[in-house]
This record gives sequence, C-alpha cells and structure tokens, in this order.
Amino acid sequence: MIKRAVEMKPLIDLCAEGGRGELALTKMSDYFNGPDKLEMFAYAELEPGAEVGYHVHIGEMESYYIITGEGTYNDNGVSVPIKSGDMTYTPNGEGHGIKNTGTAPLGFIALIVKD
Amino acid sequence: MIKRAVEMKPLIDLCAEGGRGELALTKMSDYFNGPDKLEMFAYAELEPGAEVGYHVHIGEMESYYIITGEGTYNDNGVSVPIKSGDMTYTPNGEGHGIKNTGTAPLGFIALIVKD
Repeated sequence: MIKRAVEMKPLIDLCAEGGRGELALTKMSDYFNGPDKLEMFAYAELEPGAEVGYHVHIGEMESYYIITGEGTYNDNGVSVPIKSGDMTYTPNGEGHGIKNTGTAPLGFIALIVKD
Repeated sequence: MIKRAVEMKPLIDLCAEGGRGELALTKMSDYFNGPDKLEMFAYAELEPGAEVGYHVHIGEMESYYIITGEGTYNDNGVSVPIKSGDMTYTPNGEGHGIKNTGTAPLGFIALIVKD
C-alpha cells in the first residue's frame, strides 16, 4: 500500500507537550493497520522557534531521526544541539523535548513503540 | 541518548534481497536496546540504478518513508513510481521491492515491526 505525501494530512499543534509554536505532525501509521505495539510512525516538522515541550514516556520508547534543519534536544534533562542525520532514543521512563533553533523547518521522524 | 550521524556506520549490501547496486543501510535501532517487537528502524540509501529485490515479509510489517530522490516501488507485485514524502506499507504476508530510477541517491526510512 502506498500513501502519497498529499494524501496524508498533518495535525497542527500550537503548543505540543506544553511547548510553543507550530508542530505539523503527519501520523503515517494512522493510514495503515499495523501491529498493536506500533504506537506511532510519524513525520514531524517544527517551524523556526517552535518547540515540543519536555515530556516523559511511560510504557513505551520514542526515537527521532533528524531529516533536516537544526535545533536543541532535551535529552532527559540535558540540552544538546542536533542536526540532520542524528538519531535520538528515549527509553521507557525517560523524557525529552526538541526545539527548532534554526531559520528553516526542523523535520524529523518520530517513532513510538510500546514495551 | 543521542547518536550522531558520524557515529552510525552503514552496512553496504551490493545485492540486497537479490537486487543490484549499492544499498547503504544504517540500522539505527542497533544502537539502542529497544522493545523486542521493534525489528529495525533504519535509514536506507540506494545509489542511482540500485535496487532492493522483491521479498515477502512473514510475521512482521515494513513501512518506508521516502526522504529524498525518486524511484519505482514494487507494491506486492504492482510497480508504481515513488518520491519524497510518500509512505509505503507492507503487511505481514505481503512483499515489496524498491529501485532508484533517478540520478541522485534515493534515501528512505525503513521500519520493521513484528506482529
């Protein structure tokens, strides 16, 4: 099965996880009937200055793969710079947040799998 | 946890699944201890003309998200063009293949989750 980019509609969140600015979240896994453990496979895009606030994952992990742009990642309380090609991992019980500190969109894959 | 692009080494496969040409597969999920059901979360890149041969998935699903480039996707026996922003889904028991028909690398995310 194939879903074209234009067939998938991003959800717009203006203060994701208590953050700020626009997050456009395309939940690709909503378009197929995947395994129960696959909570979310999504393409996320933060506009410049926008931020997904810090939040903790319970009973699941999340991994980001940064496709384009640059930003700051809150890695369970420690702030680090991130850019295209980097991968992050938040295990069950830990937290994270992400902010676009550049002038272009920050685009990344967000994968959540339950334990 | 963060893994920088330069810290993750791609595996080079010259005839992936009976295909041809170079596939560079960065298995990001090899760098963290994720849930058992998460078989693979990877960044894949096919050089121009390269191909992952048709293969069937048993006991698991695979989804691709096309990041860059253009190609042809074999969707369980039906050949269709694909490009940046498209998403594919191969459920348990079905098959797929992918070929780079462009002049630039074809880069995509490959996600495999067991049933």
